[in-house]
Amino acid sequence: MTGEYANGPADLVVEGCTVLVHDQDGGIRFEEDSAVVVRDGAVEAVISARAAAGRPARERIDARGRLAMPGLINCHTHAPMVALRGVAEDVPVEEWFNDWIWPIESNLTDDLVELGALLACAEMIRAGVTAFADHYFAMDRVADAVVRSGLRANLGWAYFSSQGPEGRERSLDFALRRGGDAGGRITTSLAPHAPYTVDDADLEATAELAREHALPVHVHAAENRAQTDSSLERHGRTPIGALHRAGLLDVDILIAHGTGIVEQDLPLLQQGGGRIGIATAPKGYLKFGWDTTPIRALHSIGIPVGLATDGAASNNTLDVWESMTLTALVQKSAERDPRWLTARQALDHATSQSARVTGLGEQVGALAPGRRADLILVDLTGPHVRPLHDVAAALVFSARSADVLTTIVDGRVLMRDRKLLTLDVDAIADELGARLPDLIDRGHGRRIQEYDAGR
Amino acid sequence: MTGEYANGPADLVVEGCTVLVHDQDGGIRFEEDSAVVVRDGAVEAVISARAAAGRPARERIDARGRLAMPGLINCHTHAPMVALRGVAEDVPVEEWFNDWIWPIESNLTDDLVELGALLACAEMIRAGVTAFADHYFAMDRVADAVVRSGLRANLGWAYFSSQGPEGRERSLDFALRRGGDAGGRITTSLAPHAPYTVDDADLEATAELAREHALPVHVHAAENRAQTDSSLERHGRTPIGALHRAGLLDVDILIAHGTGIVEQDLPLLQQGGGRIGIATAPKGYLKFGWDTTPIRALHSIGIPVGLATDGAASNNTLDVWESMTLTALVQKSAERDPRWLTARQALDHATSQSARVTGLGEQVGALAPGRRADLILVDLTGPHVRPLHDVAAALVFSARSADVLTTIVDGRVLMRDRKLLTLDVDAIADELGARLPDLIDRGHGRRIQEYDAGR
Repeated sequence: MTGEYANGPADLVVEGCTVLVHDQDGGIRFEEDSAVVVRDGAVEAVISARAAAGRPARERIDARGRLAMPGLINCHTHAPMVALRGVAEDVPVEEWFNDWIWPIESNLTDDLVELGALLACAEMIRAGVTAFADHYFAMDRVADAVVRSGLRANLGWAYFSSQGPEGRERSLDFALRRGGDAGGRITTSLAPHAPYTVDDADLEATAELAREHALPVHVHAAENRAQTDSSLERHGRTPIGALHRAGLLDVDILIAHGTGIVEQDLPLLQQGGGRIGIATAPKGYLKFGWDTTPIRALHSIGIPVGLATDGAASNNTLDVWESMTLTALVQKSAERDPRWLTARQALDHATSQSARVTGLGEQVGALAPGRRADLILVDLTGPHVRPLHDVAAALVFSARSADVLTTIVDGRVLMRDRKLLTLDVDAIADELGARLPDLIDRGHGRRIQEYDAGR
Repeated sequence: MTGEYANGPADLVVEGCTVLVHDQDGGIRFEEDSAVVVRDGAVEAVISARAAAGRPARERIDARGRLAMPGLINCHTHAPMVALRGVAEDVPVEEWFNDWIWPIESNLTDDLVELGALLACAEMIRAGVTAFADHYFAMDRVADAVVRSGLRANLGWAYFSSQGPEGRERSLDFALRRGGDAGGRITTSLAPHAPYTVDDADLEATAELAREHALPVHVHAAENRAQTDSSLERHGRTPIGALHRAGLLDVDILIAHGTGIVEQDLPLLQQGGGRIGIATAPKGYLKFGWDTTPIRALHSIGIPVGLATDGAASNNTLDVWESMTLTALVQKSAERDPRWLTARQALDHATSQSARVTGLGEQVGALAPGRRADLILVDLTGPHVRPLHDVAAALVFSARSADVLTTIVDGRVLMRDRKLLTLDVDAIADELGARLPDLIDRGHGRRIQEYDAGR
């Protein structure tokens, strides 16, 4: 035995499950009656359950009746905004920002940010999310929550030009200081808010800093069609055109939303020299009555699209599984084509495309030797997924986040059989609850920014 | 104590929960720290938890941290089609019917119908559904499944004109024979398939039978815009016009889908003499790339719209909670109006409108004295619903069917803390699984009907 496995026993063997694996050509396959072997926080091998039975391991998980797949990645969120879940419903985006969110956010404290981030991490672990890209304020406290939760994250400290150069400097300082933290689970980005709140000079300076420090950029752009129309009218270019002009399409960039991306943006995106990715969060677009991200057009020019939830103040949940289902449904509807965005395509967006978009394409996004062991186990025994004629369709159109039983990051079990192991929801929610009256007070008349549909 | 409660102890007290109640004007209110008292299968009272503490009862449920609301109603489904879940994905409706569903349905046996219906009942109980309106074949076996499961249902045996008069006669015979079965939990309807598969003479005969026997009618109509256009071209009238011409809008009628309802249909629906209701199943419309049910126009003429899932072969689940969330999202999107179809409106569709549409408006749809005790308990302690700034938004946009912990019909607990008490999913699914190879065989070249987008 020791001769055959010279490295000694594996750290973890998850056995007896169906495993979602990626072919070399990127196609998705389901290996039945298989096992995932984990060592040093990475996937060592995906093998048959029979072969796994003879493999010594420090810990074994009986995963019969489960499916193992890469953990979901929330490619754009504002985790602490769970504190504002449900405060501003059934209103247009101008009112949402100007009358609710930005006045309330002027009350934020570092403690509120951390409590919100902790609650968000708990929600994401329970929803099968193993990594998230966050774009917010007081990001040291979000990083602290990531450390404590065990999740993986790419973090960026947001800034507006209205803050002066300090905003940009703080974002850079944070990115340099916390990148690589939590044993490498934390990566960082520069995080200008959007072309309608960050001026051209600041966007250009951001591109320079990104090049100088080899940092990626995370930004909102072309959030909706009104922003694109307004930008064209006022500046003669689209929001994507503004990123291009500033040099931001020649650095690695994650663009959130892009529902206002238009035909003339496509060559700019296609010819960009950086690793460009888009994050789509379809639920909020439905709620605001917007178009959705033009995934088919982006696919045609080779731009990956990752799945996201945005913040819970607009999306109500951080449920990336729901984003996956909605992406498939909404794309078929928007294109009026039932053959477009199949269940397998949706799973590709949820796994390898989301990993590439967040700059984690080499580390996660597939269960393959050498990738970090970020995986989830999904129950396939519920009445709503049976009989199992088509596993991909069962995952995308029948299963839901509550079917995720176990969540593992870097080989560490963060949730087992729906029980959270790193965070105490009641304690976090109670502490957050005590501070909510101060948070949601809008009597002071302040707001952190003004929204007018496009600078 | 005995003097105060002359009727003796209640059968059940559900206490400590928030209760969703309807005001006299139909508005929805949330009563915190309350209790539901059940006697003889009906709601006796909704009272404060403090008052309930002194109320003797044979059974008590501690429902702190839960919300009690009327059970969901699936206003249009084909329960046995869970057996076909996932067999025909990512295809247009013509191919879905002609190459997959109708060839496979020619293999159906009574045993398959009953096993499918039992699995469907298990799925619905776990999703918080307490009643459903079913439109299928071999309906005696569906009725048997309803009896065994403990659910409430309105059942109709489907027929096409291609079956000759026997189809219609069988539907009538079933409706008369099984109506009132299961202690009144089963009601029945006549169930012509659709104006594109049932000719004018049969539609007229159906209207006559409905009048003669005081039976409601359950039918598909204007399923999509192509059917409406085709009907106009071939017959000079819309599918709703065909129902009107046959006299079917002057009897009580439940119309499934209606995504092809157009302006000229509205006066016909408004002036109809029967109790007219529409069932909307938005997920399938997204998958097929159709328009959705025009709820705002129907609302403007006072036609109630209930929530539905259609069969699992198109919808993949029988999850009415998902239909509720999607209805709110899709309606905002279709109307491009974030203020339309609020969370409270969605809850009204899910409760009182769904009850009216299925002819159960006096029996269920609200937790009020005298209504049948069909209720569900929803967990409000998960991280994805906290903090709880807005209960209606939390239910519609954050919670999901897996948060339903307990399902009660006629005062009888069918699921307690997610454990099914009347059905064994593994046994049913295993027995169904053994028969699937024969079911999905399409080598014979038969099909039960032909779809051509409109007669």
